[in-house]
Amino acid sequence: MRRGHNLLAVGDYNQAVILDLIRRATAGLSRVEIAVETGLSAQTVSNVARRLLDAGLVREAGKLRAGPGKPRTLLQLEASSRYAVGVHLDPTVVTFAVLDLAGAVVADHRIPTPSAADPDTVISVMAEEIRALLERESVSTDHVLGVGIAAPGPLDSTQGILLDPPLLEGWKHVSLREALADATGFPVVLEKDVTAAAVAELWVDSGTDRDNFAFLYYGTGLGIGLVVNHDVLRGASDNAGDMGHLMVQADGPLCSCGRRGCVGDLVVPHRLVQRAVAGGVLGPDLSVDSPIDGPVDHIDFDATDRRFSEFAAAAARGDRAALRITDDAAAHLARALVSVVNLLDIDHVVCGGPFWSRIAPVMQERIERLVAEDPALIPSHPVVLESSSIGEDVAAVGAGCLVLDQTLSPRPSALLIAG
Amino acid sequence: MRRGHNLLAVGDYNQAVILDLIRRATAGLSRVEIAVETGLSAQTVSNVARRLLDAGLVREAGKLRAGPGKPRTLLQLEASSRYAVGVHLDPTVVTFAVLDLAGAVVADHRIPTPSAADPDTVISVMAEEIRALLERESVSTDHVLGVGIAAPGPLDSTQGILLDPPLLEGWKHVSLREALADATGFPVVLEKDVTAAAVAELWVDSGTDRDNFAFLYYGTGLGIGLVVNHDVLRGASDNAGDMGHLMVQADGPLCSCGRRGCVGDLVVPHRLVQRAVAGGVLGPDLSVDSPIDGPVDHIDFDATDRRFSEFAAAAARGDRAALRITDDAAAHLARALVSVVNLLDIDHVVCGGPFWSRIAPVMQERIERLVAEDPALIPSHPVVLESSSIGEDVAAVGAGCLVLDQTLSPRPSALLIAG
Repeated sequence: MRRGHNLLAVGDYNQAVILDLIRRATAGLSRVEIAVETGLSAQTVSNVARRLLDAGLVREAGKLRAGPGKPRTLLQLEASSRYAVGVHLDPTVVTFAVLDLAGAVVADHRIPTPSAADPDTVISVMAEEIRALLERESVSTDHVLGVGIAAPGPLDSTQGILLDPPLLEGWKHVSLREALADATGFPVVLEKDVTAAAVAELWVDSGTDRDNFAFLYYGTGLGIGLVVNHDVLRGASDNAGDMGHLMVQADGPLCSCGRRGCVGDLVVPHRLVQRAVAGGVLGPDLSVDSPIDGPVDHIDFDATDRRFSEFAAAAARGDRAALRITDDAAAHLARALVSVVNLLDIDHVVCGGPFWSRIAPVMQERIERLVAEDPALIPSHPVVLESSSIGEDVAAVGAGCLVLDQTLSPRPSALLIAG
Repeated sequence: MRRGHNLLAVGDYNQAVILDLIRRATAGLSRVEIAVETGLSAQTVSNVARRLLDAGLVREAGKLRAGPGKPRTLLQLEASSRYAVGVHLDPTVVTFAVLDLAGAVVADHRIPTPSAADPDTVISVMAEEIRALLERESVSTDHVLGVGIAAPGPLDSTQGILLDPPLLEGWKHVSLREALADATGFPVVLEKDVTAAAVAELWVDSGTDRDNFAFLYYGTGLGIGLVVNHDVLRGASDNAGDMGHLMVQADGPLCSCGRRGCVGDLVVPHRLVQRAVAGGVLGPDLSVDSPIDGPVDHIDFDATDRRFSEFAAAAARGDRAALRITDDAAAHLARALVSVVNLLDIDHVVCGGPFWSRIAPVMQERIERLVAEDPALIPSHPVVLESSSIGEDVAAVGAGCLVLDQTLSPRPSALLIAG
């Protein structure tokens, strides 16, 4: 028996509109206010409110006395009535987040990505971790709306398939969405990692007027989620956000694409670790067997993760050789960002992803300054860089937000497939 | 006395909605259909229709017999009731287009950009050309809604100022919008050239389902207009669309930004002409005094325009040296497009601008194939290239469409300033 997909009737647009209004009004809304706001009849609002109350999605919370009439009962979201699970499959780490109906993270968990295992095994491990996390938090599976999974692109969003993510060996043409739905029993929505991160940033940021920004995603790979007019830009096949092959250095190392100087290949964590080893910042005991200027394959992600922390610590304490490496990386990233800013006229870049917070202290301000000083920068306004407030879980949180979006947002289409 | 800005009351949203509906229904619409479509009352529709008829913007055109009731009178747009003027200021050529209310080009005209003249003189020349063109077409100035002007960026769209367009010497911080409004007496809207081109493409293409595409603009400079979800992407300061500094060649010539291998510097028409002269494709009589690998300045645009036609003709007849140059340019453009496609997941590129049609026969298919074969391309879908059906006037037509958009589209904001 599949669960979760019948909690809200698909296509009940009025219900979604009303629930969305209540969700956004943290103080609560009266039925009269809802009718005024939506233009729906008092009778319709009353009927929908009754259904939402019966389903436990909203609660009555006090009375509002407005004018001479009788006091109005306020409806508030019952945040703990339903949950969404977000999963982020990164080549180095798998992150899990449980979100309540208001989008608050109520639990999270991380495991190293089982690199030797085949996709089927990894998917089983994910399902088991989700089950255990929900059990630990005493969340009934009946109250889980679905699972969102963020994964490296490129992917086939229609089929829910990972195509050939460059850093996930063995994950060619894996039907991740269907397999995870089968393994968990929940409906599953699949999104590219950088897009999910941008979704999370939009969601936590919904109160601000930041309608256009880029999310610089610094994970095992590099990517950039784009938000235009308060909407995530997904593109023709939901694969937008790849900036790894932007050329930034004339005599750079050879990239997997056959050219030199691609920004992704220059700045991703395992490359910085390799340079740190070569430059004597880190001792030689690293179990990374990829040559420093060779193409990316057989990377030891566990070791990279561990050594990257050591490297970032060296840069943070002012190690000259480490700072030369982060300075170079900052220059490469700034150059790539200038290309993106010139193309999209973006004035705000949020930085995050699993590896970002470790090097943000030595890189963020520097990148911002280098972008501002770049003679190739076209727009004359400042480009502000900031670190995501969501932290390393950002893509997992975004994947959970996608499930809430599917359930709560008043739009006719539904990405969720039945689990 | 300023004209044109009071023909439609600003903020009359219902009127704009109804006029927009009538415009899109080429066969005409009855008042009953309009009421059903808009949800407006029969009385409101009737009142607005009366105002539109009185203003001459629509006409009654035959009866529709639907069901047992009395036949319904159809309302049709009176395309010749109002006009918009579009101007495109390119460093080489100034293009003028007169559009009727339906967006059809009823007249166009081109003059070489007076390169030696100061902006004030050029603006006077533009105003005089507009006056003469309208007179030639017997368009009364009372029927002109406004002037749209497309110009190279970067620009300050709030102030209507050209900031420092790299190829328009002497045009630093010119208040083009206000000056042209003063010189013509019409309201003026200013837009970046590549954005205007994308607007034109969207407008003529409004019947199709092409919601996402890039407009590769090949003029005196290179740019790329972006359409996302059927809306032109303008960015934070309306300066989106610059791709000139995308690095595509490790050992390329020195660009004005101080780096080597920027695509704009490699492929713009005067560079191809310079290479053609250096390679013996064209005779040495060219009055271009800029060194081939030096920064761009003091370009003789008239000569470039003329010699570019000779060069394109040589390539078209199979001249080996000319084809080597166009092949290189195609490879550079393909590389830059791959960056854009990877970033935005675009599957459709429309090519145009003042110089495009001359080299399209030898470059379009080649670029399309090189994009498809590029190992750095992330999305797995085809990327289709086509030439704009609008031709060299595309940015001028787009500038005119902007005026119509301002007048006809039901949206609260108005970019037009009173002339």
